[in-house]
Amino acid sequence: MPFDLEDLYRDLHSHPELSFAETRTAGLAAARLRELGLDVTEGVGRTGVVGVLANGAGPVVHLRADMDALPVTEATGLDYASTQRAVGPDGVEVGVMHACGHDMHVTWLLGALERLVATRDRWSGTVVAVFQPAEETIGGAREMVADGLVDRFPHADVVLGQHLAPLPAGVASVTSGPAMAGADTLTITMHGRGGHGSRPQSTIDPVLAAASAVVRLQSIVSREVAPGALAVVTVGSLHAGTKSNIIPAEATMGVSVRSVDADVRATLLDGIRRIVAAEATASGMTEPPTVVVDETVAATVNDPEATARVRAALETRFGAERVIDIGTLTGSEDVHELATAAGAPLVYWFVGGVDPETFSRAAAAGRVEQEIPTNHSPFFAPVLHPTIEHGVETLVTAAMEWVGRR
Amino acid sequence: MPFDLEDLYRDLHSHPELSFAETRTAGLAAARLRELGLDVTEGVGRTGVVGVLANGAGPVVHLRADMDALPVTEATGLDYASTQRAVGPDGVEVGVMHACGHDMHVTWLLGALERLVATRDRWSGTVVAVFQPAEETIGGAREMVADGLVDRFPHADVVLGQHLAPLPAGVASVTSGPAMAGADTLTITMHGRGGHGSRPQSTIDPVLAAASAVVRLQSIVSREVAPGALAVVTVGSLHAGTKSNIIPAEATMGVSVRSVDADVRATLLDGIRRIVAAEATASGMTEPPTVVVDETVAATVNDPEATARVRAALETRFGAERVIDIGTLTGSEDVHELATAAGAPLVYWFVGGVDPETFSRAAAAGRVEQEIPTNHSPFFAPVLHPTIEHGVETLVTAAMEWVGRR
Amino acid sequence: MPFDLEDLYRDLHSHPELSFAETRTAGLAAARLRELGLDVTEGVGRTGVVGVLANGAGPVVHLRADMDALPVTEATGLDYASTQRAVGPDGVEVGVMHACGHDMHVTWLLGALERLVATRDRWSGTVVAVFQPAEETIGGAREMVADGLVDRFPHADVVLGQHLAPLPAGVASVTSGPAMAGADTLTITMHGRGGHGSRPQSTIDPVLAAASAVVRLQSIVSREVAPGALAVVTVGSLHAGTKSNIIPAEATMGVSVRSVDADVRATLLDGIRRIVAAEATASGMTEPPTVVVDETVAATVNDPEATARVRAALETRFGAERVIDIGTLTGSEDVHELATAAGAPLVYWFVGGVDPETFSRAAAAGRVEQEIPTNHSPFFAPVLHPTIEHGVETLVTAAMEWVGRR
Amino acid sequence: MPFDLEDLYRDLHSHPELSFAETRTAGLAAARLRELGLDVTEGVGRTGVVGVLANGAGPVVHLRADMDALPVTEATGLDYASTQRAVGPDGVEVGVMHACGHDMHVTWLLGALERLVATRDRWSGTVVAVFQPAEETIGGAREMVADGLVDRFPHADVVLGQHLAPLPAGVASVTSGPAMAGADTLTITMHGRGGHGSRPQSTIDPVLAAASAVVRLQSIVSREVAPGALAVVTVGSLHAGTKSNIIPAEATMGVSVRSVDADVRATLLDGIRRIVAAEATASGMTEPPTVVVDETVAATVNDPEATARVRAALETRFGAERVIDIGTLTGSEDVHELATAAGAPLVYWFVGGVDPETFSRAAAAGRVEQEIPTNHSPFFAPVLHPTIEHGVETLVTAAMEWVGRR
Repeated sequence: MPFDLEDLYRDLHSHPELSFAETRTAGLAAARLRELGLDVTEGVGRTGVVGVLANGAGPVVHLRADMDALPVTEATGLDYASTQRAVGPDGVEVGVMHACGHDMHVTWLLGALERLVATRDRWSGTVVAVFQPAEETIGGAREMVADGLVDRFPHADVVLGQHLAPLPAGVASVTSGPAMAGADTLTITMHGRGGHGSRPQSTIDPVLAAASAVVRLQSIVSREVAPGALAVVTVGSLHAGTKSNIIPAEATMGVSVRSVDADVRATLLDGIRRIVAAEATASGMTEPPTVVVDETVAATVNDPEATARVRAALETRFGAERVIDIGTLTGSEDVHELATAAGAPLVYWFVGGVDPETFSRAAAAGRVEQEIPTNHSPFFAPVLHPTIEHGVETLVTAAMEWVGRR
Repeated sequence: MPFDLEDLYRDLHSHPELSFAETRTAGLAAARLRELGLDVTEGVGRTGVVGVLANGAGPVVHLRADMDALPVTEATGLDYASTQRAVGPDGVEVGVMHACGHDMHVTWLLGALERLVATRDRWSGTVVAVFQPAEETIGGAREMVADGLVDRFPHADVVLGQHLAPLPAGVASVTSGPAMAGADTLTITMHGRGGHGSRPQSTIDPVLAAASAVVRLQSIVSREVAPGALAVVTVGSLHAGTKSNIIPAEATMGVSVRSVDADVRATLLDGIRRIVAAEATASGMTEPPTVVVDETVAATVNDPEATARVRAALETRFGAERVIDIGTLTGSEDVHELATAAGAPLVYWFVGGVDPETFSRAAAAGRVEQEIPTNHSPFFAPVLHPTIEHGVETLVTAAMEWVGRR
Repeated sequence: MPFDLEDLYRDLHSHPELSFAETRTAGLAAARLRELGLDVTEGVGRTGVVGVLANGAGPVVHLRADMDALPVTEATGLDYASTQRAVGPDGVEVGVMHACGHDMHVTWLLGALERLVATRDRWSGTVVAVFQPAEETIGGAREMVADGLVDRFPHADVVLGQHLAPLPAGVASVTSGPAMAGADTLTITMHGRGGHGSRPQSTIDPVLAAASAVVRLQSIVSREVAPGALAVVTVGSLHAGTKSNIIPAEATMGVSVRSVDADVRATLLDGIRRIVAAEATASGMTEPPTVVVDETVAATVNDPEATARVRAALETRFGAERVIDIGTLTGSEDVHELATAAGAPLVYWFVGGVDPETFSRAAAAGRVEQEIPTNHSPFFAPVLHPTIEHGVETLVTAAMEWVGRR
Repeated sequence: MPFDLEDLYRDLHSHPELSFAETRTAGLAAARLRELGLDVTEGVGRTGVVGVLANGAGPVVHLRADMDALPVTEATGLDYASTQRAVGPDGVEVGVMHACGHDMHVTWLLGALERLVATRDRWSGTVVAVFQPAEETIGGAREMVADGLVDRFPHADVVLGQHLAPLPAGVASVTSGPAMAGADTLTITMHGRGGHGSRPQSTIDPVLAAASAVVRLQSIVSREVAPGALAVVTVGSLHAGTKSNIIPAEATMGVSVRSVDADVRATLLDGIRRIVAAEATASGMTEPPTVVVDETVAATVNDPEATARVRAALETRFGAERVIDIGTLTGSEDVHELATAAGAPLVYWFVGGVDPETFSRAAAAGRVEQEIPTNHSPFFAPVLHPTIEHGVETLVTAAMEWVGRR
């Protein structure tokens, strides 16, 4: 019985696995790679898989697909919807769902390898399939690099990858330079002095200090960054106190920062530190705020020259009208860490998965934002066709641009 | 063996009971009242106790002591410290402690009755002992009134009560007019629209809206209330969001309001409603904030004429230098509900429980606030002597001012 | 033709003079004092006048009236309304009006002296009439003291004074302790870096910094001062920039602070300095804000014992219902500097000037604030009778309480 | 004696004229155009000049130079520095300086016409020289259009123009699409209720309301606009009050708004209106704020196709390394109104005027922003060579791209 990509996708979608727990997915990928005759290594970076397709002299192309799902309870109502649950890192059981399309990424990459194997007499070089764990939590790429991805396998001349996006199926978006923002995650605690709610004069109110900081942080983006530069400072969580009539001793904020430019990033981080410290002082706090950078991921920056080659190849293959440029996204990725570690150029692009008619109707009504479920939504559900075929084709087209033609 | 007030106090302190769970305390009080020959009714307002000492024609004086303890884990290190634990209203087990001195209030009242019984040939009239449950949660007085306190027992000509305070033992503080503030407790929720932390433009950020409201609320006290009027608006809790990079849909604030004057109270409550609504509008929220008044308790206002009589009696008995006036406290009480229900004047005063030398040393160093544990502190620990004797004497002195002398 | 107080008042009202320019007023006062036989010294503290009425052995009572008018254009429509104009200290010509009743103060004091001279056989001691310049700008008292008021004239055993107020004519208000607040006036400049309005990133925006400071300053009164303590922090002026599209280099705030308690005052001033410095830091300013204290005047604090004597004397003379207590006013005065310099007790009270029926109607409608023009209003216009007679009588009554009766 | 461009530039620089007062400049331009044989019309849009160089069949190219100077006092110390002074629109005398390079623009355009006349046998078509008044105040383009620029003169097939910029001399920057932002200027007044600074409770404080609005306005850019979209909201001026101790009745803000996208602009303007209205409500103001849009100028958007032609021509002429793209500037212009009125494509670019070595040194030190005086600076001083020659050449090159070659 021939291998069927749609069956594979349905199966993966029904069996989502959280970050660094992608054992079943990795096993399926490895098995299929072996069927295709690749040299397969499992357990690269805990649950990652690397398959090498050596096909004579020529450039080495790394094709990357990430594998992990999200702690989201699926609400699509599809017959292949996930009913899986898992215990997340915080010990609480949650629903698990491929709400970001990594199931499709795995499908595309296996489909592309099938095609590259089938057409191996038409090209020469090496294709390395990289099935990465833990992109959602940022860390999988780092882990694979730490585990020898660069040294143990043929050295990449280019790293290519693609992501499913809420664009019309059949359309790809390629952006030169920054394709996705970098992100920093901070936890900031303001240290006041608690007391009875009726006696504020004997306290240092951390609720007011944190509120003032939240308000004042807005000015970093509005005043300190060049207009038009990508910059986000979001206070996503703020927690203080247990009762109305008790002034607590502390207030804690969770802050997410987005940028693509290093100077802008420095401005944002410096500004945050400066402002929370100053607001603590304004409140009369004697202890400075605690600022912990929980996580940092760089921007995903496409190499301009390599990107131009991919764009040209896709335009030639699909027509210019099907290769758009939606610009820099403010979300973040870790694919670039694979390229950076190898010193290779990166090209990372987006492939649509929405029924084109549905998309057109929403667009005509100006309601794309409202009607098209985006990545991470419990309703995220790509149409299978032509999404599967188109994504395989874009990946093959890009890869073929790099290897030697015979 | 004679009844010993110090033993009683130590026993009560070791066996604190939460609001409306004061069954052991009530049982002890009722038993002692019966020993003294009073007509005793238990279960008035769930766990309250009323004892009537009818002693011929003359005025009816209600003497009130509250009985409940607090969900605080004692840290005094006393040999009679509480080790009790209990399940609080929210289902969580907590330490329980007489951290507000209601054990002393019960002791004083039983001691005063002992004295009034012993000296019954010197006065005529009726003394009603009211052991009230659930002052800490506000509700015990209400419950006793609802259960017939006014109608089923001799009607009060005056309601007297006293509270243990971090003043030197041997000193009482009597304030005419407002002695303690009224309080309103509000829960306010700002309704935004959640989304990804990197895409604020598709959200309505409730963290910023709530922070702006907290900041703006300060102006009610600073600008809308006459300088010198007692007014407090405390945002004691603020909770929003779960992760740095997810903008939540809601933010919730717990607000405590204090005032003594009805117009000031109206200004504060109107101002809060107006400001949170306006800040929601400023954020572009379409749903107005939800504002729930969880609880309201009026100010404790002493009757000027009755207070002057009590002050004069105490000054005569103890000397003017031991009867001070610390002014209106911003904390709240429900003793006044007993007086209001009866249409009787109220006099409620404070009795010191701190070792006078300790107090003097702290005062000389300007460190009273830092060194003397106040009510609700896990270190709150009155000296037993002369606190017990002095509080019995102040209560007897005030009661004797009202009943007829023979 | 006998001297007529009403004629005098109308004349003074029609001829108001600004601070330290009260030459005509001083001349009229000096002339009348001489007519009455007093020993008169002019030019004490620039335009001040001192008249001594020595009447045998006994206490020395200083009676003080201030003389200056305000840069307000009168709008009363009275036939004796002021049409005067003058060049103010800033070089701009303005209307001048006795909008604070100092014309009445001069009238009262001359009327009182007339009575004290007429009844000199009934008392013994010395009365010193002090006609003070420049109360409105604070400085006149200081100037008279610097010019030898204490040393060159009989030393005060008590300083008495009274102020016209929007109370019913025939009523006086006497407050023990703080009768009027102290005031500090500050000018604060935030030093940013200017630039083009379209390039905020190359500037440090002082408008935002100053705005943030204004908002944050509210929290001093709302959080740092004990509820019920008198405290005001008003930013009365804020000026920055010339054009919408130029970010200026500086923003300047005029701040007025009111308090009666020294600790509260320190809290307010420290808080202001701390907050503006912190807000400058929050904005990334490298130069700290400039904070200049332009002027400081202490609270007007009545001596409790002396005040009790004055109150008792007024109550005996007018009935207790005509001697009220409106509590501490938040406005400021410099009369206390005369008492402080002499080491003498001060009693300073308020005398009503509003038609009692008009006042009652407004009070019944809860519209006193809206309908009764207050001091400094261009509509301020006391009824002449019984205001003149009542104020003379209150001043004589208070003075007679001090001198020896024969 | 031959006409000398450097002499012309020095002369223009020494004789700057404010907007709509460019009579001397216009006269010099008209005279030179006549010398060159053009058909000249003066007084088009008050002080504008139009010269037509008809050279046979072919496209009509409009070349625009603006002429007005700024109310800036020159500080360059150049021997040809301006010492001119003039009375500005607000009646105050100010220094006048060509601080934005319009003197160079006039020089370039006259130099280009000289060249086009000299080479007229090599091209065919019509070149229209447009010397526009009052760009600095926005209004000159509008005035020329209103005065018949489109109908009275050969109809433009393209409108070309160039602006002197702080780039290295010899370099031009060409940006497709938005080259400069649009601007809206607003005056916003908050209507409170004034009163004495010591009695805030009887007032509605407009200083606090305006300050709160300034703070809250920051959130429009930080939260409501897509990250990376060009958006500026600057409160350039804020004025309220006259004295520290008087709470004023009003506060007035001057606001400058920048954007290139129509949706972003709507978000900014809607957000401003919403927030100032909400902050007025938060303050308890009954009268909504007054919001006046004083001026609106659209973004300067270059036609992509026409821009590509100009860029290609310049790259061919000067080499690609001397044609850069600095992206959208946040400053504003009205040149696009000439193109919009004609329905013609616009190409507007920037030409460097800084000594290349000076620029390189500053760039290497990362101090371009600090060391290179920008437009509107009193130190703005282009090097004369090769700035003059290069700007003439870029203008001729672009114009020649459009006319027919023979």
